[in-house]
Amino acid sequence: MSVDYSKGAAYMNGVYVPISEAKIPVGDWGFTHSDVTYDVVHVTDGAFFRLEDHLDRFHKSLAGYRLNPGVTRDQMRHILGRVVALSGLERAFVAMLSTRGVPRIYGSRNPMDCDNTFIAYAVPWVDVIKPDVQERGAHLIVASVPRISPKSLDPTLKNYMWRDFTRGMFEAHDKGFDTAILLDQEGFLTEGSGFNVFIVKDKKVITPDRGALEGVTRKSVLDICPELGLEPIIGPITYADLMDADEVFTATTAGGVMPCARVDDRIYGNDRPGPISAKIKETYWRKHKEGWHMTPVNYADADNPFKVAA
Amino acid sequence: MSVDYSKGAAYMNGVYVPISEAKIPVGDWGFTHSDVTYDVVHVTDGAFFRLEDHLDRFHKSLAGYRLNPGVTRDQMRHILGRVVALSGLERAFVAMLSTRGVPRIYGSRNPMDCDNTFIAYAVPWVDVIKPDVQERGAHLIVASVPRISPKSLDPTLKNYMWRDFTRGMFEAHDKGFDTAILLDQEGFLTEGSGFNVFIVKDKKVITPDRGALEGVTRKSVLDICPELGLEPIIGPITYADLMDADEVFTATTAGGVMPCARVDDRIYGNDRPGPISAKIKETYWRKHKEGWHMTPVNYADADNPFKVAA
Repeated sequence: MSVDYSKGAAYMNGVYVPISEAKIPVGDWGFTHSDVTYDVVHVTDGAFFRLEDHLDRFHKSLAGYRLNPGVTRDQMRHILGRVVALSGLERAFVAMLSTRGVPRIYGSRNPMDCDNTFIAYAVPWVDVIKPDVQERGAHLIVASVPRISPKSLDPTLKNYMWRDFTRGMFEAHDKGFDTAILLDQEGFLTEGSGFNVFIVKDKKVITPDRGALEGVTRKSVLDICPELGLEPIIGPITYADLMDADEVFTATTAGGVMPCARVDDRIYGNDRPGPISAKIKETYWRKHKEGWHMTPVNYADADNPFKVAA
Repeated sequence: MSVDYSKGAAYMNGVYVPISEAKIPVGDWGFTHSDVTYDVVHVTDGAFFRLEDHLDRFHKSLAGYRLNPGVTRDQMRHILGRVVALSGLERAFVAMLSTRGVPRIYGSRNPMDCDNTFIAYAVPWVDVIKPDVQERGAHLIVASVPRISPKSLDPTLKNYMWRDFTRGMFEAHDKGFDTAILLDQEGFLTEGSGFNVFIVKDKKVITPDRGALEGVTRKSVLDICPELGLEPIIGPITYADLMDADEVFTATTAGGVMPCARVDDRIYGNDRPGPISAKIKETYWRKHKEGWHMTPVNYADADNPFKVAA
C-alpha cells in the first residue's frame, strides 16, 4: 500500500485519508458556529478501552445537539476500528466527530438545511499532561474566568466551545502553572480543559456533581474506588474543599489518572503525587493490562478491524 | 486564467485558492477549541463598506484573544481587496479569520505552541434574513436559552461559540419563527445569531448596552439617527421594553437594517415593517450609493486591488 497512514488515519464522509488530508471546509458550521460534537476513545496495547461507553456518550451528544450524520452505530464502530488498523498504531487516540455541515441552500441560517458529517481519525497517543509533569505532580491554577453556565451550554454533551478553558490556560502559563481548572459562577468546582477533577479527603474520593462532563475515565475511577477501600462520591466541591483536600488528581482519556501536587498556592502532601492518587492510577493501568473493558483491534485486516465480532 | 474564483476566492496562509479548496485541518484549535476570531465586511457596488472599522474591530478581537497571525494591517487590507478582485464579485461578504492553528509540538496543550493562521475569503452576498421575510417583517422568538455570560465569553470580541444561538435557532424554527434573540441571565436583551437588535419607542432608537457585539451596522444606525430626527440610545432593554416598543429591527453586515413585524406573540404596528425602521433602512442603503465610508475595489488588477491607495 502506497498511502502512509503512520502519522494517523482519518475517515472523512466516506473516504479514508492520511491525517494530513483530514480537513473541513471553512464554511462548515462545525467551524463557523462551533456546531459540532465529538468523542475520543483510547487504544492501548492494540485494544480500545470502553469503546461502547464512548459510543453511548457520542450518541447522547448527537441527540442533544440534534445532529444525525446518517451513520449507524455498527458502521461507526467499524470505521473507528478501521482507522486504527490502517494506522497500525497500538497506542492511539481515536476521535469521532459530527459537524452540522455546510448548508445545502447557500446562505441559509437554518440548521435543518445542513447535511451533518461524520469524521473519525486515529492519531498517536500523547499525554494531555506530560509524563514528567505527571511524575512530579501537576500544578493547577483555579482560573479567574468562570466556566460557561450549564444554562447556556450543557457540559455533559461534548463540545469544542473551549474559550473559557483557553483563557484559563493562558492564565496558567502566564503564572507558571501546568494547566487550569474552572469554578462555576456560584463558586463550585467544575472541570479543566478536557479533564475531570477529583479530590481525596480521608478515604473519600470526590468529583463535582455539576458543570462537568461525565467522563469515561471518571467513571472508571468511580468503579475502581470500592476495590481499593475508597468511597466514591459525586458531590459539590467548593474552593475551600479543594484547599482542604488531602490529594487532588485529574482524569481524562488523554492521559488517564494524573496526580496533582499543587493547586494555586496550596501544596499537597510532600509536593508529590499523593499515595491514594498513585494507587488509583496504578490500578487503572493494571486493569487495562488485564483486559478490563478492552476490545482488541485486528491490525492484520483493516476490512475486518475487530478480532471478535464487536 | 484557468482557476475559477466565481463562487468565491480565498487566501489560506499565503496561497490564493477557489473557495471550494479553503479548508482547515481537523486538528486546528480554531476548530477543536473554537479558538478563532473573525470579522466580516461587505462589498456592494464594487466597494467595501467601512473597511477600516472592520479592520479596527478585527485587531481588537485578535488582541483580546492573544492571536497574532503575523500579517500586518496593510497586508490584510491588500489580501481582502485581492480576494474580492479575484472573485469578480461586486456584491460580496468578505471574511477575515485567525485561528490558533495546529501545535508545533505534537500533543501540546499550550496555546503558545501554535502558529496562528490568517485566512480571508470573498463569497457572494446573501441576506441573513431572506428578502421576502424582510419585506413582510421578520418574526423573532425570544429563546429560552440565555446568552453565554460575558463573565465567561466577551461578546465584543467576535467568536464562533454559537451553541446558545443554535439552540435558539432550533427553537425558532420548531415554533415557526424566522430567527431568535437571546436575553442574558438577568433578563436583559442581548443580540441574535450574528445581528444586533434595536427597539424604537417614540423618537428614541435603543440598542442593548450589554451582552452584544459592537456591530458596524449598529454603529451606522446610531450615526444615521440624528439626521432623521431620532435619538440614538445605548441602554438596558428588558423583555417588557421589547413588548412595549413601537417597532423592532435588527442590524448586521449580512443584510443591513432588517425590520421585524413580530416578537413572540407581540405584533407591531400593522404586522409590517414600521415606518421608522423602513426609513433607517432606506437611509442606510442610500448613503452607500452616495459613497459613505465606501472603498472601491480595482477589479481590473488583483495585484493592485484598490483604485486609490487605501
